[in-house]
Amino acid sequence: MGLGTFWGISVGAGDPDWLTVQGVKLLSTVKWVACPQGSKGRPGLALEIVRPWLQPEQILLPLHLPFVTQPDQLQAAWAVAAEQLGPLLEQGEDVAFVCAGDVGLYSTFAYVARALKARLPNLRIQAIPGVTSPLAAAALLGSPLVQGAEKLAILPALYALAELEQACAWAEVVVLMKVAPVYDQVWQWLAQRNWLQQASLVVWAGRPQQAIFPTLEGLADYRPPYFSLLILRCSAQKTLPAATDS
Amino acid sequence: MGLGTFWGISVGAGDPDWLTVQGVKLLSTVKWVACPQGSKGRPGLALEIVRPWLQPEQILLPLHLPFVTQPDQLQAAWAVAAEQLGPLLEQGEDVAFVCAGDVGLYSTFAYVARALKARLPNLRIQAIPGVTSPLAAAALLGSPLVQGAEKLAILPALYALAELEQACAWAEVVVLMKVAPVYDQVWQWLAQRNWLQQASLVVWAGRPQQAIFPTLEGLADYRPPYFSLLILRCSAQKTLPAATDS
Repeated sequence: MGLGTFWGISVGAGDPDWLTVQGVKLLSTVKWVACPQGSKGRPGLALEIVRPWLQPEQILLPLHLPFVTQPDQLQAAWAVAAEQLGPLLEQGEDVAFVCAGDVGLYSTFAYVARALKARLPNLRIQAIPGVTSPLAAAALLGSPLVQGAEKLAILPALYALAELEQACAWAEVVVLMKVAPVYDQVWQWLAQRNWLQQASLVVWAGRPQQAIFPTLEGLADYRPPYFSLLILRCSAQKTLPAATDS
Repeated sequence: MGLGTFWGISVGAGDPDWLTVQGVKLLSTVKWVACPQGSKGRPGLALEIVRPWLQPEQILLPLHLPFVTQPDQLQAAWAVAAEQLGPLLEQGEDVAFVCAGDVGLYSTFAYVARALKARLPNLRIQAIPGVTSPLAAAALLGSPLVQGAEKLAILPALYALAELEQACAWAEVVVLMKVAPVYDQVWQWLAQRNWLQQASLVVWAGRPQQAIFPTLEGLADYRPPYFSLLILRCSAQKTLPAATDS
């Protein structure tokens, strides 16, 4: 019997209607739906997003993929996930792994896929692209993320302010994907440069608890949640073709 | 009478099934569908993508938005587009502008929206996010665009190889969005560094004429079409958590 296919479905940044037609079609054909478990045993974001699209006969497989950075803990978690999903795929069942945002942009899909591939070298792995949080945030803010000749820098996390400095030296627009742990120091850094008005924050994009902050003025004491994204325009006066309101 | 809304619908990178559910829903409610005209009077990519979703009663408004970089020619084109669409919006009609990829990522939507806003300061403008070509390309290539601690740099076009050099100094992964005009010099640059195997090219992602090149080995004489995207992994040995196949 042939192996099943391991599908990575990008379910978009938050709103269930940000799923693609391809994602919805595929999701309706698979019996087994794997998803990252949320913290403290709560349902993860990806599951919350696809819930309106699921049918009662579909079987959920929550995977424990902890929010840690230690390589050995991560390795162990991916291996356990592969042990959970491997037998189903060996029996010829297709499994869809749903991920918030896009499976190609800082997602756990690639790691689980690799762990499965180590067990099942002939496994067919297929990714379906989706709406990423930087673009969802830009749409919600009502302004383009980048235009004209602007360069874009995306950082998954910030380990030192020097990295932000470097990114701004290179790009006109910088995105900090998971800004919560460093929000306080980033806010101070922006305030020192008088750049609070050039920075925007979007939290829980597309979810009921969504909040949109077009500037960071007055938000020194704000404590953003885990799903927070910061967009910074490093310079106001660069290489854009002049627009009609300039 | 109130003004209509000017919608920007991101129709995704090529495959009509990459439209979001939100995009399809909205597209089915509007009578007026504006789209960039292709070169030489041919239908543009956005129109090709949404064609399966359109109904006979919907009215197309092709806009002449030339592929030029001169600010005065661009300004003039945006002003003409605003003259075309303005009266409809003033009559309370909603107009949807469809754009390939995402309206927030190097799209003409923002310029046309700004030209309209200059005429109609109270105009409501709404963007719907979509699947971008870098993530579509990654999905087609079967490998994540970025993972772990990798930084991502996106360049809309390349004006000098020094920029590519700088991008690689900063980021682990670099995307060149419209690589066709500089493909030849980029290929030579990669060959000199022995980096041809770290670069991938995807052309016409999601379209019938799609082609996927996981490496650039042997492609010195290839002439990519306008819709070509290059993904470069600047270093093989960086900050990734070790994965199970390493």
